Amino acid sequence: MDFKEAQDRVDRWITSFEEGYWPPLAILARLIEEVGELSREINHQYGSKPKKDGERPAELELEIGDVLFVLVSLANQQGIDLGRAFQRVLDKYERRDRDRWTPKQGAGPSRSA
Amino acid sequence: MDFKEAQDRVDRWITSFEEGYWPPLAILARLIEEVGELSREINHQYGSKPKKDGERPAELELEIGDVLFVLVSLANQQGIDLGRAFQRVLDKYERRDRDRWTPKQGAGPSRSA
Amino acid sequence: MDFKEAQDRVDRWITSFEEGYWPPLAILARLIEEVGELSREINHQYGSKPKKDGERPAELELEIGDVLFVLVSLANQQGIDLGRAFQRVLDKYERRDRDRWTPKQGAGPSRSA
Amino acid sequence: MDFKEAQDRVDRWITSFEEGYWPPLAILARLIEEVGELSREINHQYGSKPKKDGERPAELELEIGDVLFVLVSLANQQGIDLGRAFQRVLDKYERRDRDRWTPKQGAGPSRSA
Repeated sequence: MDFKEAQDRVDRWITSFEEGYWPPLAILARLIEEVGELSREINHQYGSKPKKDGERPAELELEIGDVLFVLVSLANQQGIDLGRAFQRVLDKYERRDRDRWTPKQGAGPSRSA
Repeated sequence: MDFKEAQDRVDRWITSFEEGYWPPLAILARLIEEVGELSREINHQYGSKPKKDGERPAELELEIGDVLFVLVSLANQQGIDLGRAFQRVLDKYERRDRDRWTPKQGAGPSRSA
Repeated sequence: MDFKEAQDRVDRWITSFEEGYWPPLAILARLIEEVGELSREINHQYGSKPKKDGERPAELELEIGDVLFVLVSLANQQGIDLGRAFQRVLDKYERRDRDRWTPKQGAGPSRSA
Repeated sequence: MDFKEAQDRVDRWITSFEEGYWPPLAILARLIEEVGELSREINHQYGSKPKKDGERPAELELEIGDVLFVLVSLANQQGIDLGRAFQRVLDKYERRDRDRWTPKQGAGPSRSA
C-alpha cells in the first residue's frame, strides 16, 4: 500500500459518516491518546511497567497502526500529501543530520541515492 | 511512495551509521518530542497560542513528516510491517466502529470496498 | 498539601517497594500514557470523540491527578525540588512573557507581587 | 509552596490578561508541547539523542516546571482542586496497586499512614 492509497482509504472511511473529519485540535487529542497507548505497551515490553493481573498483552503492531491512522487523518484534514511530507523529511535529514552521526566505513548513503 | 519503500529508505539511512537504531524507549521519547512540535504548530494555527516575535512559522507538512519518520523508525526497529499494521487497523475500524458514527445516506463504504 | 509533602508522600510509597524508582525513560513513557488518558477524556468532554457504548466517564480530576503523580515521581527520581522548579517558571513567565499578552486595564500583576 | 498557592499564583497571572484561560483542547496542546520538550531533554541525558552542535543544555528542573505550570492552568480552567486530585490518586494507589509491587521487608507504608 502506498501513502496515497492509505490517505484515500482513510478519507473514504471518514467521509462516509456525517461527522466527517474532526477539527485539528481534536485530531491532535486523539493522536496523543493513541501515542499514550503505544507508550504503555512499549513500557510493558521494554521498560519497567508490569502488566496488571489479567491485563491483555497489546500488540505493538496494532498500536503503531493506530497512531499511523490518526496521523493519516490529520494529513487528510489538512490537505497534506503524506508522501511529499515524508520525502521532504528524508531530504532534510540527508542535508542537515549528515554529520551528526558516525558513518559506517564505506556504508554511508550516497548523495545520489 | 509505498510503506515498504518508506521503511527501506529509513532503514538505509539509519543503518548507514554506527549508532544504528535506538532502543525502543529512546525512539518513543523522540516520537513525543516530534508530536510536541506538531502540537505547538497546531496550537499556533488553530488554538490559542500566539507566535513569539520573530518566531518562524513551522509547516505542518514538515511536522507531520517528522512524526511519520520516527514512527517508521520504530516499526523498523521492531520488525513491524507498516502496511500490514495499517491494514489491520482499517479492518478493525470497519468491524468495530461501524455503528459508532452516523452513515451518510447511501454513502457508507461498501463491505467489498 | 504543599509540594514538599507531595514529594515525600510519593517517595514513601515508591521506596516501600523493592522495585523503587524506574529509570527516567520508563517514567517518561508512563507520563505519556497518563497524558494520553487525560487527552482522551478532554476529547470526550470538549472535543469530538463520542463515548463507546458502556464506556464509563472518567473524571478529569483523577486524570490530572495521575499525571501529577508521575511528574512528582520524575522530580523525585531526579532529585528536583518541585516548589523551586515551579517558582523558577513563574519568574520566567513574569520576565519573558509579560508583553506577549494583553494586560487588563489596571489588573496586571504588580512586579512586586 | 502548597498546591493552593500554586493555583492562585497561576490564576492571578493568567487572569491579569485579556486572553485569560485557553479552551481545554488548546491547554492540552500546550501540555503536549511542554511534555515534548521534557522528553527531548530526558532523551539527551538518558537516552540516545546527541545534542546538535551549539544546542544549549536545557534543565530538567525547568522542563518539569513548565509541564507543572500547564497542568496547574488546566486544573484552574476546570475548577479542579489539585490537592484533592493528588490525594485521591494516592488513595487509589494504596488501595489498588498495593499488591502490584514487592514490599520491602518491614518497610511497606502502613495502611494508617
